[in-house]
Amino acid sequence: MLDGALPEPVSIIGASGALGFGLALRLARAGCAVTAGSRDAQRAEETAKRAREAVPGSLVAGFSNEEAAARSELLILCVPFRNQSETLHNLRDVLRPGQLLVDCSVPLAAAVGGKAVRTVGVWQGSAAQQAQEMVPEGVTVVSALHTVSAASLRDLDHELDEDVLVCGDKRADKRRVAALVDTIDGLRCVDAGRLEMARIVESTTALMISVNARYKTRAGVKITALPDDLWPAT
Amino acid sequence: MLDGALPEPVSIIGASGALGFGLALRLARAGCAVTAGSRDAQRAEETAKRAREAVPGSLVAGFSNEEAAARSELLILCVPFRNQSETLHNLRDVLRPGQLLVDCSVPLAAAVGGKAVRTVGVWQGSAAQQAQEMVPEGVTVVSALHTVSAASLRDLDHELDEDVLVCGDKRADKRRVAALVDTIDGLRCVDAGRLEMARIVESTTALMISVNARYKTRAGVKITALPDDLWPAT
Repeated sequence: MLDGALPEPVSIIGASGALGFGLALRLARAGCAVTAGSRDAQRAEETAKRAREAVPGSLVAGFSNEEAAARSELLILCVPFRNQSETLHNLRDVLRPGQLLVDCSVPLAAAVGGKAVRTVGVWQGSAAQQAQEMVPEGVTVVSALHTVSAASLRDLDHELDEDVLVCGDKRADKRRVAALVDTIDGLRCVDAGRLEMARIVESTTALMISVNARYKTRAGVKITALPDDLWPAT
Repeated sequence: MLDGALPEPVSIIGASGALGFGLALRLARAGCAVTAGSRDAQRAEETAKRAREAVPGSLVAGFSNEEAAARSELLILCVPFRNQSETLHNLRDVLRPGQLLVDCSVPLAAAVGGKAVRTVGVWQGSAAQQAQEMVPEGVTVVSALHTVSAASLRDLDHELDEDVLVCGDKRADKRRVAALVDTIDGLRCVDAGRLEMARIVESTTALMISVNARYKTRAGVKITALPDDLWPAT
């Protein structure tokens, strides 16, 4: 049973992908009303149905990415980096001031046929900063959820126990994202600094992929020596 | 009391600096014979004396960086990034094939008057790769010890509990470094991949500095979901 009121509703852009679907499941299980977006509305409905079956009693509906983007004030962008730009381009008439977009993109070199343990340079500094440049004025981008394994999220029997590094220029926005993500058991959001720090946090995904290859695991990141209350009211 | 034989002797280049001195103390306490190197031989002797006073019964001697570099097969380079190139240049006639150099340099933008939460681009990809380019042929560079706080190392009452990400092109070299570093209570070495991954691991130092600024702490990194034996014999 939930502790209190339901968390803020969220739309996941790219919910049919591995990370998007894993997040949809975990957020749905945490009691969050999830709109699962996909390029194709039919595919989105199927994704939502799969999620509802995996999490009985959950609130998941499927819509096209455009409709999904319109339905929530809080959006999570879960498309692969090579689709990030096109996806944001397609959403430019739907997004509206005041919305908060959580970008999870990682510019792995795999996007251009390179290795997944390497990244490509993004002109703006990071995928998150590229997203911030592309969204309409008034939409804010926060960068998060780069290092949590999609497979671990999707496996609901797997007990998560790791941190999520959150980058953004306003603390209130990061706290809002943390309030959502922290509803997922075993995840803890840590303030990693301004949005520009995303260029480092994004690259830690490549680092985890390298560690995973060596140890045949799904490694996560934890930050030590932090205080108990990571998001105090100011 | 030590479990078995003494660990491999090590020379620390730049042992008068914060990180170098912290490592000297911790390694000395682990029973390691440490040569503390400094640009100035007199300063090195003073540093060694301070270390011996802090760790009674320890084996610490002080020599110029050049002499220190000649005295061990395993070297740790602890100078600030802005001095890395000059230091390696000065050591080029002393270093010899077969030596293993652990590079801890981090190209923080602070080296050129910028912010410590930012890095500068290194032509070779990372400080470690710059070091590998500068050392004589036959000397191998392994990259490690970027995220452990110098202040935490130096405070011998502080209980360490964090991971050290190790990058290098040969597993045997990394294992040798891990065998040394793992003698320090509370540190655990994790294989992060090839030397080129240092460009990511080095940048995590800037990330930790950003986290530290937010939480007024000395944060460290831990990797989750790893097997018990991180350095199995192959």
